[in-house]
Amino acid sequence: MSSGNSASAPPAAPGDPLGRVDTPALVLDLDAFEANVAALHAHAAARGVRVRAHGKAHRCPEISRRQVAAGAVGVCCQKVGEAEGFAEAGIADILVSNEIVDPAKLERLARLARRVRLAVCVDHPGAVAALARACRQAQARIDVLIELDVGQGRCGVATIDEVMALARAVAAAAPALRLRGLQAYHGSAQHLRTVQARSQAIAGAARRAALARDTLRSAGFGCDEVSGGGTGTFAYEVASGVYTEIQPGSYALMDLDYRANEPDAAAPAMRQAIGVMMSVMSVRAAHAVLDGGLKAVSVDSGLPALRLPGWRVRGVSDEHTVIEPLEAGRTVPAGEGSSAPAPLLSHLPVPGQRCVLDPGHCDPTVNLHDWVVAYRGDRVEAVWPVLPRDASR
Amino acid sequence: MSSGNSASAPPAAPGDPLGRVDTPALVLDLDAFEANVAALHAHAAARGVRVRAHGKAHRCPEISRRQVAAGAVGVCCQKVGEAEGFAEAGIADILVSNEIVDPAKLERLARLARRVRLAVCVDHPGAVAALARACRQAQARIDVLIELDVGQGRCGVATIDEVMALARAVAAAAPALRLRGLQAYHGSAQHLRTVQARSQAIAGAARRAALARDTLRSAGFGCDEVSGGGTGTFAYEVASGVYTEIQPGSYALMDLDYRANEPDAAAPAMRQAIGVMMSVMSVRAAHAVLDGGLKAVSVDSGLPALRLPGWRVRGVSDEHTVIEPLEAGRTVPAGEGSSAPAPLLSHLPVPGQRCVLDPGHCDPTVNLHDWVVAYRGDRVEAVWPVLPRDASR
Repeated sequence: MSSGNSASAPPAAPGDPLGRVDTPALVLDLDAFEANVAALHAHAAARGVRVRAHGKAHRCPEISRRQVAAGAVGVCCQKVGEAEGFAEAGIADILVSNEIVDPAKLERLARLARRVRLAVCVDHPGAVAALARACRQAQARIDVLIELDVGQGRCGVATIDEVMALARAVAAAAPALRLRGLQAYHGSAQHLRTVQARSQAIAGAARRAALARDTLRSAGFGCDEVSGGGTGTFAYEVASGVYTEIQPGSYALMDLDYRANEPDAAAPAMRQAIGVMMSVMSVRAAHAVLDGGLKAVSVDSGLPALRLPGWRVRGVSDEHTVIEPLEAGRTVPAGEGSSAPAPLLSHLPVPGQRCVLDPGHCDPTVNLHDWVVAYRGDRVEAVWPVLPRDASR
Repeated sequence: MSSGNSASAPPAAPGDPLGRVDTPALVLDLDAFEANVAALHAHAAARGVRVRAHGKAHRCPEISRRQVAAGAVGVCCQKVGEAEGFAEAGIADILVSNEIVDPAKLERLARLARRVRLAVCVDHPGAVAALARACRQAQARIDVLIELDVGQGRCGVATIDEVMALARAVAAAAPALRLRGLQAYHGSAQHLRTVQARSQAIAGAARRAALARDTLRSAGFGCDEVSGGGTGTFAYEVASGVYTEIQPGSYALMDLDYRANEPDAAAPAMRQAIGVMMSVMSVRAAHAVLDGGLKAVSVDSGLPALRLPGWRVRGVSDEHTVIEPLEAGRTVPAGEGSSAPAPLLSHLPVPGQRCVLDPGHCDPTVNLHDWVVAYRGDRVEAVWPVLPRDASR
């Protein structure tokens, strides 16, 4: 039963020219990746805030190892399967920045807590009790962050009463559980387009987090950590004086959706590091077709953008991306009629030619690939595995 | 380098109750799946048209084996990696219903042709020459289908002159290559909503295919096969008198986008067989959160639909699906103000509760999972592997 999804051959080998990578393939510009990691980590370190690099963006243990080597205190992730994969790869400090409620998953978490420094989020007293049971059975100890809803309206508690009830439940489960602090991630603020909107949203999140932190401390509970922040807002969490730790993930890779944000001069700019390489497989009169589609690039945040002058993406289907000259969609003014110039095809691609596309959204795009092809200049430097799809569980 | 994406534990075991499947997981209702396969295969067989079941919809060799056992002549697929995976699983007759131009991929195709009955599509003379070279080097023979653009505007040639030029190129490469016929798939007709629009589109496709076939035959070329047709239009290809073979894939699984088509009384109706099972991981005042997101269900064709009375999907992010009561989005008429009734929460889910969602688009959704959990009634009957993500290459 396991033979069907075990074999996987990498699309390139170190030293290969980039133009010979088997496609579709995920490619990572190491110069851009390293610059992104260095710039963000330096920004946070200079202001006394720790970076916990989010592994959900890439699910690639080698990328996490490099983020830790560049100063991250560890990783965060959303799934028990991710945590197991990162732990197996040698990451020693892992936060599951998400609620886990299934008893079988809690058992796996408790086993993992015997090997690494582990924390998990809670927003329901029932989950605290179940987590404590799993820890006692495994003779393990896990740190807990109470997740606050600081504006996203997804997981997390919204009232101080709920925070205090959870803190009491965690305290009652000592020593199996220990309250580390608060998870205060504002996901929907990440893509608010203006600097003003993003900074205001995080100001509100920080106020809520500070209130919860101070109330916990007044009641004698520990609250060492306030963790949150992503690629779109990290500068505001860092500057807040409330957050002790930020959780950016996409910053290392980048995508079109983050690049659509108004840049903030106070934050370091991130470069596009990840791309999806495809090959031209069919050339028609006024369009061409690439050999990757919805199974190579996610379109949940819009179409990818082609790095090929004069051409753009028309559409993406299961296994194909259709590209066309920029002029193809030009509106013909009334009266101009058939005298409109034909599309400019001077740069017509040739079959087999490689193209790279910038994805709209990096997280679900990386998840479509078994391998990250890391390159520098026009040479492949390394090929790194991505955790299996099962890491979603 | 290969350790990172090799291990994968199935989310369930045969005999498990459905409510204990580890989530998120892809689940297949075997009764619906078998009914779909039986109904479509019987419809085609009664009219003398062969079914070549499309493997791109599921990339699951066990599903292909069952489709062949139920009368399909073989499978078609889009990728060399898929063809290799299906061949390894024992499928003996495979059509790559797509253009392959990369020399390394053509070498793999030629090697595969020594083990199974294999055909591939062409729309460019350069690809014919490269394919012939690869076959001669491997001492292999491959059948060729000339792909016609019958209305989709993606791959395929659009003129009789191009068809004839390709036929001459294939003939010149005998015996390495043999012209089997025409690929005449109209992809964009599959989701035209009305019966009239779909039947008219396929009538046009069949006329183009018949013209190409007759011209080839008049010039002394062989054209035994006209292959095409999908889940949205198969009844029209079957009735055309032109198509000898249909290529449906989604029919076995189904999705919301196909279910949005106006049904045709002349075609057998297909049942929803595939679903994505998730668990409730957080319950808030007026919404709940499920433990799967964009990495468990594709949203390229719209949001998934929840099989939970009174609730609907509000949104899907990387690792979460937010659901809300149907009443939550109700517009409050002006003046009604705060006297509007609170959302009906009588069926509030509980943490850990399993839900199943119907995906908008089955192909890219199945591709997000390592396993298909096949169930009957409320019991898991089997767990089948899906080909690795590398099958995209």
